[in-house]
Amino acid sequence: MRLSRFVEFGRKIIGVGRNYKHHAAEMKSVVPDKPLLFLKPPTAFITEGNPIKVPRGCHELHHEVELGVIIGRKGKDISEIGAMDYVGGYTLCLDMTARDLQEEAKKNGLPWTVAKGFDTSCPVGSFLPKEQVADPHNLPLWCNVNGQMRQEGSTADMVFRIPTLISYISSYFTLEPGDVILTGTPAGVGPVQPGDIVEAGLGSLIRMSFKVQVEEKSM
Amino acid sequence: MRLSRFVEFGRKIIGVGRNYKHHAAEMKSVVPDKPLLFLKPPTAFITEGNPIKVPRGCHELHHEVELGVIIGRKGKDISEIGAMDYVGGYTLCLDMTARDLQEEAKKNGLPWTVAKGFDTSCPVGSFLPKEQVADPHNLPLWCNVNGQMRQEGSTADMVFRIPTLISYISSYFTLEPGDVILTGTPAGVGPVQPGDIVEAGLGSLIRMSFKVQVEEKSM
Ligand SMILES: [Mg+2]
Ligand SMILES: [Mg+2]
Ligand SMILES: [Mg+2]
Repeated sequence: MRLSRFVEFGRKIIGVGRNYKHHAAEMKSVVPDKPLLFLKPPTAFITEGNPIKVPRGCHELHHEVELGVIIGRKGKDISEIGAMDYVGGYTLCLDMTARDLQEEAKKNGLPWTVAKGFDTSCPVGSFLPKEQVADPHNLPLWCNVNGQMRQEGSTADMVFRIPTLISYISSYFTLEPGDVILTGTPAGVGPVQPGDIVEAGLGSLIRMSFKVQVEEKSM
Repeated sequence: MRLSRFVEFGRKIIGVGRNYKHHAAEMKSVVPDKPLLFLKPPTAFITEGNPIKVPRGCHELHHEVELGVIIGRKGKDISEIGAMDYVGGYTLCLDMTARDLQEEAKKNGLPWTVAKGFDTSCPVGSFLPKEQVADPHNLPLWCNVNGQMRQEGSTADMVFRIPTLISYISSYFTLEPGDVILTGTPAGVGPVQPGDIVEAGLGSLIRMSFKVQVEEKSM
């Protein structure tokens, strides 16, 4: 299967939390001493044209714009030196987060699973083959809501860079083609409401927009 | 793809925590008022003949024997009344848990991802088509280590039963064929060491065994 169709066949979405210093600070958290990992299931993916749906019980849904690294080769216990060979391409992602459900989970020592992994929690842009990205650690990232700029950062500010993330993650989880690593978000995260338009960009490479909707129950 | 091959194509493993009263008590936890969910990635699956590997940094790896429910039909916002129609079959699972890493995560309000989702953390048995299981809520479950009985329970003691789990989970996560729900473990969880043999059974339907190994680094 072609890697550009990662949304259809990818089996793992690995999120990295607090990977930008100013975002960790705005969350009143410290930068961790090793990558902080969480999972979203593949049912979290949506592509442009599909709405972001506020999950049940969430009253504070946040945008987090992130560089997505798409794995191109299977590997386990990958060294930092060889790690970039496992990258097949990149995309732009929104790590949509039910902040209120996440805060409740944190307080109670419970998994972040619902807060991070609900359906539509991972809007993604088009696939960029790695040859089209000269330096993944020097890309402007931005996110606006209804035309108002909320996040403006650069992948230059990642705490743990891509080779470190791939090496660390693959020491626990075999990486497979189509897996996506969400590399963390710069400062400026904030709430969205039903009806809002969330627009995000990665340098001049990707620009994408998604509408926020109330989740309608078919039950 | 045939459902019996769920390990090859399934894209989601959804764990349910503290779903047996006596296990919640032994963990010094309360029974939650709604299902407590976590995720393992599909790279966690192993079948008989492959070893359980102690993940890096873990010094207390626990066995948890569980009934696995295998989803046979795609669905979202499934009602309890219709939920059993979405079950395609069952299996027996071990929800291997790096208890020390989980305790550290709980204390710090961090995700359980590494503690629950590392490679080999989901040993599974053979596929049982649902027609072969008269009553999934009345199955003996057991687990022994080196021939010494550790867990003996019955799926009759689940706090949240299968229809409730399917309905609740599908209110956040679209369920797809091949997805597996780990329905929780009875009391008696405990540590395993490299060299141990973990054996588990589901009534007279499944009996399986796995050897525990130290993880060897190829790095
Ligand atoms: Mg989690
Ligand atoms: Mg994030
Ligand atoms: Mg369990």
